Amino acid sequence: MKLWTSGPKGSETPVVTVDGKDFDASAVTGEFGPAFFAAGGLDTLQEKAAAGELPEFTAESGARLGAPLGRPQALICIGQNYAAHAAESGSQPPERPIIFFKHPNTIAGPDDTAFIPRGSDKTDWEVELGLVIGRQASYLSSREEAAEAIAGYVIANDLSERTFQIEHSGGQWSKGKVAPGFSPLGPYFVTADEFDPHNANLRSWVNGEPRQDSNTADMIFSVEDIVLDLSQYMQLEPGDIILTGTPEGVALSGRFPYLKAGDVVEIEIEGLGRQRQEFVQA
Amino acid sequence: MKLWTSGPKGSETPVVTVDGKDFDASAVTGEFGPAFFAAGGLDTLQEKAAAGELPEFTAESGARLGAPLGRPQALICIGQNYAAHAAESGSQPPERPIIFFKHPNTIAGPDDTAFIPRGSDKTDWEVELGLVIGRQASYLSSREEAAEAIAGYVIANDLSERTFQIEHSGGQWSKGKVAPGFSPLGPYFVTADEFDPHNANLRSWVNGEPRQDSNTADMIFSVEDIVLDLSQYMQLEPGDIILTGTPEGVALSGRFPYLKAGDVVEIEIEGLGRQRQEFVQA
Repeated sequence: MKLWTSGPKGSETPVVTVDGKDFDASAVTGEFGPAFFAAGGLDTLQEKAAAGELPEFTAESGARLGAPLGRPQALICIGQNYAAHAAESGSQPPERPIIFFKHPNTIAGPDDTAFIPRGSDKTDWEVELGLVIGRQASYLSSREEAAEAIAGYVIANDLSERTFQIEHSGGQWSKGKVAPGFSPLGPYFVTADEFDPHNANLRSWVNGEPRQDSNTADMIFSVEDIVLDLSQYMQLEPGDIILTGTPEGVALSGRFPYLKAGDVVEIEIEGLGRQRQEFVQA
Repeated sequence: MKLWTSGPKGSETPVVTVDGKDFDASAVTGEFGPAFFAAGGLDTLQEKAAAGELPEFTAESGARLGAPLGRPQALICIGQNYAAHAAESGSQPPERPIIFFKHPNTIAGPDDTAFIPRGSDKTDWEVELGLVIGRQASYLSSREEAAEAIAGYVIANDLSERTFQIEHSGGQWSKGKVAPGFSPLGPYFVTADEFDPHNANLRSWVNGEPRQDSNTADMIFSVEDIVLDLSQYMQLEPGDIILTGTPEGVALSGRFPYLKAGDVVEIEIEGLGRQRQEFVQA
């Protein structure tokens, strides 16, 4: 099952795709956010689609794709979760998952215009596998329990301003991660039963030139490791989104220039679709 | 005007105090959260209270105080904003505000039982002045604009687990800040017109012994400095809460033992009331 949204910003229609057919999910929920996941919305959608109770949906020609997910209570990121990216950032691979948070209002549609923040000289891309929490999770005791807490997956661009991230906040990274529009999500969310998070290619391009090209098999901490670990430190909530880190090939490495107005970034994860952002100056 | 809540967890009554009289605010809002502030709820309350349209409220004897504020989109903290605390943490005073985030689900009532997280050996207290954003704020241009974006103030205990904060997340602090119940708020929220954030004593005690004793005049970055600075990096949202840092006198200094089950922490800010938490093992 895939979830996505279609329409102008702020008035998107929620859509569910089951067995290749698209249905309008408005009768079940206004958005695929925390309340939807907490109420068991995925099961409800499955039942109603199977019973023929949802109207079919056809997107208008050229309609905008919105973010597939509503704003979570928390948008959490894992840092340096690919060994080669840790190395290009000048760090050793971590012994435990490193976390930081983004403001949930950074979430944007997958192809929305993106912004170079004012005062930025180091805006950077990061293709990432995002996971979505389906149920409250605290002090989990096994990877199996962690797997059961994951509702599904989404592709995200964890946009970053490296000067803000590294120099403007005493080494605490969030300040370079929260500019408006800095978390494009989607095109769609895929339920956990339809995606293998342990073996998916993920890639990025700038102006058509390849940048990142890796596989989630290279993650230091798997999605189950991450959820198990984080649940020892916090209670995860339905709808919470965890971005699981980016592989090597970002501008921070020194191998590529940072982004400037007019640049086009594309990112893709096999099975989770592709995004395209054109950058303008904020 | 003061806002507070009364009643069992999850079914608190929202209460507004105007000119010393308490009114049930349920007819205006279910909680004092993002939607309330975004909709101009403070003005609505003022008008309805003045017009005699709100029923008076009397708390039941022994009723629990809930958190005065609903969960924000973001709960943001400022680090090392008092020079003496930066020093006791082994750091130089920062040149710009240092930020990190807490999960909003850490918010608890001011006197709720608090928890020593599992695996913790360094649970610590931090009395802090919290400010609440009243309107969307992005790329503000002056301290005056920043002041206009502040709806009011609240006292918070920014509970912290120092091993988790410093050693378990590659130096990114959030991991030690997000255990369940780690952000007691209140007893009440005070509107900006009734509180001077530049000259308020703030104090903490453990088992009745004094720990922190400082004044917000010692903040490196004032509340206006903070909002002005943060708005250059993110869009602040109505209801967002910013905890503005803690003064010296925490256990991290090495001068006092960390918390253990059975300990009682009290914190107070002049004009914003007093909290009391008894700690148990999670």
